[in-house]
Amino acid sequence: MPHSATQTRPDKRERLIASARELLHRHGVQSTTLAEIAQAADVPPGNVYYYFKTRDELVHAVIEQHAERVRARLRSLEERPTPQARLKALTHAWVDDAPDVIEHGCPLGSLCAELNKLDGELADAAAQLFRIVLAWAERQFRELGRKDARELATTLFAGVQGAALVAATLDDERILTREARRLERWIDSLA
Amino acid sequence: MPHSATQTRPDKRERLIASARELLHRHGVQSTTLAEIAQAADVPPGNVYYYFKTRDELVHAVIEQHAERVRARLRSLEERPTPQARLKALTHAWVDDAPDVIEHGCPLGSLCAELNKLDGELADAAAQLFRIVLAWAERQFRELGRKDARELATTLFAGVQGAALVAATLDDERILTREARRLERWIDSLA
Repeated sequence: MPHSATQTRPDKRERLIASARELLHRHGVQSTTLAEIAQAADVPPGNVYYYFKTRDELVHAVIEQHAERVRARLRSLEERPTPQARLKALTHAWVDDAPDVIEHGCPLGSLCAELNKLDGELADAAAQLFRIVLAWAERQFRELGRKDARELATTLFAGVQGAALVAATLDDERILTREARRLERWIDSLA
Repeated sequence: MPHSATQTRPDKRERLIASARELLHRHGVQSTTLAEIAQAADVPPGNVYYYFKTRDELVHAVIEQHAERVRARLRSLEERPTPQARLKALTHAWVDDAPDVIEHGCPLGSLCAELNKLDGELADAAAQLFRIVLAWAERQFRELGRKDARELATTLFAGVQGAALVAATLDDERILTREARRLERWIDSLA
């Protein structure tokens, strides 16, 4: 049933992006070669250039896939009944992913930290990932009736990012759990 | 006066470490070549291997230089009369360095974020930089009579690191300034 097989396996382009996202998170952008990505995606190395002319093009596609995943995750949080519950669930998302965060850092934070040192376009594209989360959190704080919603969103997101970085660096999941709990209490205190 | 000239210019090893520290901060570990470091240090590329057999050896030396600089900076904060003033001055250190932090990220935080993705020894060595700051901040909170000094030190440092990352990513110095001010008020509230 070749047709069904084609349907169940993502096409080569999708496989390349998914493998790149995984490898960039594990090893960083600069440490990952197109050949490694092709191998992980089970795509012949010579085929990569058919889909992505440069590594930067592939990194852009990875950022776009991150953006789609972040939006989908934020949409799933919208099911919670109150902005307070939604903000706490957002904070808890890093705890849910703790093993991965401790091992390789926050996928968004570590990507932005690395791309911030490279020039221009990729850094700007990656910064959009932060903006998506911040805009969503700001909307929740605004629904809580907070005029300083923008600042509160930044404080929350910076708190989570800092906790993820310190916990990953010190290889200590408890730091992430404890800081998330503290931020959740802080959200309750504002509501 | 060749002797005097020798005294005023740091030796080649020191120059290589200082240039490497600067370039690693600007461009990241994986994006910086030994040839670029040698050129920036005005040392013939062929000489580098006399001082450092591998790039990892040079990165270790950079981490050690960071550690010395961090310790010196913390010592300079000890002149402040109270633990509260010392903790606030620590927080303000990132604001004092704001242009550099916005441009390339926190030198310690972005180094740890990158090395955390590489294997073993370098990541462990870089984590010591976080531990030096955390131990110092913990001592200050303990002097304030806080039993939860360790946790408070982590919250403070994670707050600063998160603010630095978000501010650098969004290229917005006000985020760093505002979050530092918020953390300074928080220190006051604990004292």
